[in-house]
Amino acid sequence: MAAEPGHDAVEVIGAKRDGRELSDAQIDWVVDGYTRGAVADEQMAAMAMAITLNGMSRREIARWTAAMIASGERMDFSSLSRPTADKHSTGGVGDKITLPLAPLVAACGVAVPQLSGRGLGHTGGTLDKLESIPGWRAALSNEEVLAQLESVGAVVCAAGDGLAPADKKLYALRDVTGTVPSIPLIASSIMSKKIAEGTGALVLDVKVGTGAFMTTVDEARELATTMVALGQDAGVTTVALLTDMSTPLGLTAGNAVEVQESLDVLAGGGPADVVELTLALAREMLAGAGRDDVDPADRLADGSAMDVWRAMICAQGGDPSAALPTARETQVVVAPASGTLTRLDALAVGLASWRLGAGRARKEDVVQAGAGIVWHARPGDAVQEGEPLFTLHTDEPERFGRALEALEGGYDVGDGSAYTPAPLLIERVG
Amino acid sequence: MAAEPGHDAVEVIGAKRDGRELSDAQIDWVVDGYTRGAVADEQMAAMAMAITLNGMSRREIARWTAAMIASGERMDFSSLSRPTADKHSTGGVGDKITLPLAPLVAACGVAVPQLSGRGLGHTGGTLDKLESIPGWRAALSNEEVLAQLESVGAVVCAAGDGLAPADKKLYALRDVTGTVPSIPLIASSIMSKKIAEGTGALVLDVKVGTGAFMTTVDEARELATTMVALGQDAGVTTVALLTDMSTPLGLTAGNAVEVQESLDVLAGGGPADVVELTLALAREMLAGAGRDDVDPADRLADGSAMDVWRAMICAQGGDPSAALPTARETQVVVAPASGTLTRLDALAVGLASWRLGAGRARKEDVVQAGAGIVWHARPGDAVQEGEPLFTLHTDEPERFGRALEALEGGYDVGDGSAYTPAPLLIERVG
Repeated sequence: MAAEPGHDAVEVIGAKRDGRELSDAQIDWVVDGYTRGAVADEQMAAMAMAITLNGMSRREIARWTAAMIASGERMDFSSLSRPTADKHSTGGVGDKITLPLAPLVAACGVAVPQLSGRGLGHTGGTLDKLESIPGWRAALSNEEVLAQLESVGAVVCAAGDGLAPADKKLYALRDVTGTVPSIPLIASSIMSKKIAEGTGALVLDVKVGTGAFMTTVDEARELATTMVALGQDAGVTTVALLTDMSTPLGLTAGNAVEVQESLDVLAGGGPADVVELTLALAREMLAGAGRDDVDPADRLADGSAMDVWRAMICAQGGDPSAALPTARETQVVVAPASGTLTRLDALAVGLASWRLGAGRARKEDVVQAGAGIVWHARPGDAVQEGEPLFTLHTDEPERFGRALEALEGGYDVGDGSAYTPAPLLIERVG
Repeated sequence: MAAEPGHDAVEVIGAKRDGRELSDAQIDWVVDGYTRGAVADEQMAAMAMAITLNGMSRREIARWTAAMIASGERMDFSSLSRPTADKHSTGGVGDKITLPLAPLVAACGVAVPQLSGRGLGHTGGTLDKLESIPGWRAALSNEEVLAQLESVGAVVCAAGDGLAPADKKLYALRDVTGTVPSIPLIASSIMSKKIAEGTGALVLDVKVGTGAFMTTVDEARELATTMVALGQDAGVTTVALLTDMSTPLGLTAGNAVEVQESLDVLAGGGPADVVELTLALAREMLAGAGRDDVDPADRLADGSAMDVWRAMICAQGGDPSAALPTARETQVVVAPASGTLTRLDALAVGLASWRLGAGRARKEDVVQAGAGIVWHARPGDAVQEGEPLFTLHTDEPERFGRALEALEGGYDVGDGSAYTPAPLLIERVG
């Protein structure tokens, strides 16, 4: 029976099912076997569910992450003339922060190698947003990434297939087997890619609230603590910020509309919350890379961050001066009463944007560059009955109905005297 | 997202993962979808692990069982001139009880439709034992089963593919995904086949001890109680006996050696424990079928059970008078000391028999008809140093080494003054 191919997998699954800690050898064997196909999808699905329900120790998570890194190649930026720093967000609504942040940090003398995945579900994807810029392409070779980091200082591109292939396979499996909500599996998935990517410093933006994957501060803190420890154990200077995602970021959710808002920030304007979070993350990245002598606010003010943005877009085939695409149809939702906007729910806005065509349900879906939603007030702002509160954008007007349904109950207009804004920056873990 | 094929499966898996009760509609959907291939193996594997770890309510188990029955055909014995009763054992070492039991109960006027699976692992299979009889064949059509029940009164044959195909698929999946040890899944697997088989009464022999799947009385009682409730809810008169499997049954484990021991019982002799258990199960089957006016001990004594045995073997192509096959090689293990055999471990004996070639590790393996093990004393019996304690049988002498390893530490010879035998019949659930 010991010679039977599936038998060792059954033993390792059984250990986790029965609440035992897996040995280093068991973890290496099962992750390598899954990558090679010797451990079948159904076996890894049972294992993932056992991990989801029984958890993993700190040591097991570290080993699991190391095994996923070992399944593929690691990038090496030691030949660059500058230090490197990257940022990862766990996903939020209107979260365009990477767009102004990457060129801003590069303008401060720290290279930003941001290798991203595609968005799935209501939180949107950075690559989808950038692809609304005419000509811009997400796919770069490893050599192109290295060359652009040296010449421009910032790269936002699609992660190649060579990085952590075990994670790529496991991520797709978890998506269809109900095994996404597991802190050990989320933490090892994110950190295996970021460590393999080769960044020297890493700042994690862990979102908390209705529009985020983690809806409570306790869960978000556990995820953040787990990831920070993984990064530090692997020699990557890692900190995490827990930030609010009960309200969407800025005034836009979608693709081209978020690029436009990012340009406003790079031009020295833009919504106050987007600027605040961009600067907070930039300061952490600079500190992690040993460059906390530079104030990123200066680089926004003097236009140098915008210069890097233009160079970064050009280097990947985009035309930074071209007009951004707009949706064929728009629909306005007016304020139902006069008063103060006291609540704007991130999940409602995210679902509306997704249903308008800005996001995808399946990875083979095509997103609309012009689709999305713009809101004309943020919580705390005064609104006037009958004046525009939202503008919905889509190429397909039949999408308005379900987007409006998503918005229903997603905002309150009332008496502003008792309104107190929730803080954007909740906690720092590092 | 609601239109996405995998999406409903993810929702149903997520409900069980999060500890919620599944609705009837969810259970029907997932079992039917799995049978048709709309729910993938990896999705059912995650579901099975969530069930293994979070359990199912009595209502969920009943619905799951009903959905597995509904995945295939049901047999109908209402046209027979006699009532029907069947027995199912959860699997033990030396458990040849079906062989004398089926013809004995038929000789008492109750038809026995025993549709069996193949043995896997150390507990051996009834069909493998019967196939050691020259000419005997396990495969019968539904029409042949019905005709033989009417003419002979007893059938032991392979369960057709039409009965509970969802269970057949799920059983194979559980075997490779570490999701075998789940009382809801074990109970629904056994009972879906037995209810679909169409028997009017059912007696469950739930084994407890080292050689059984359930090693504690509490676990065995929970399994028994669950199965009895499932049977009664489905209109099958069902009782369960919890019986000891810390010691193997009788004096033989294997294939032809167990047939020979069964013939001894049918001839009015045989080991006392095999006779005791055969009669106890026969009385329960007769009571379940409304025929407790008949004493099965009389039918062993008057030879009528042996007559049915011979008719049953002939009807399936076997020659009941042919010599049984013997193994090419034997090896004797002698008693290490004089005294009393105070312990004989069922798992050790089962593993030894399996390693001698009597059982299979994979379903495509071929078993040896002559392989097995005979022990010359039972716990409580006196043994003499240097006299034979075990005889090992196999066609392949290279198997002796690992069989002897399995026996090591599996028995004790000592002072018999403090020895008290464990009761064979532990508890009745019904």
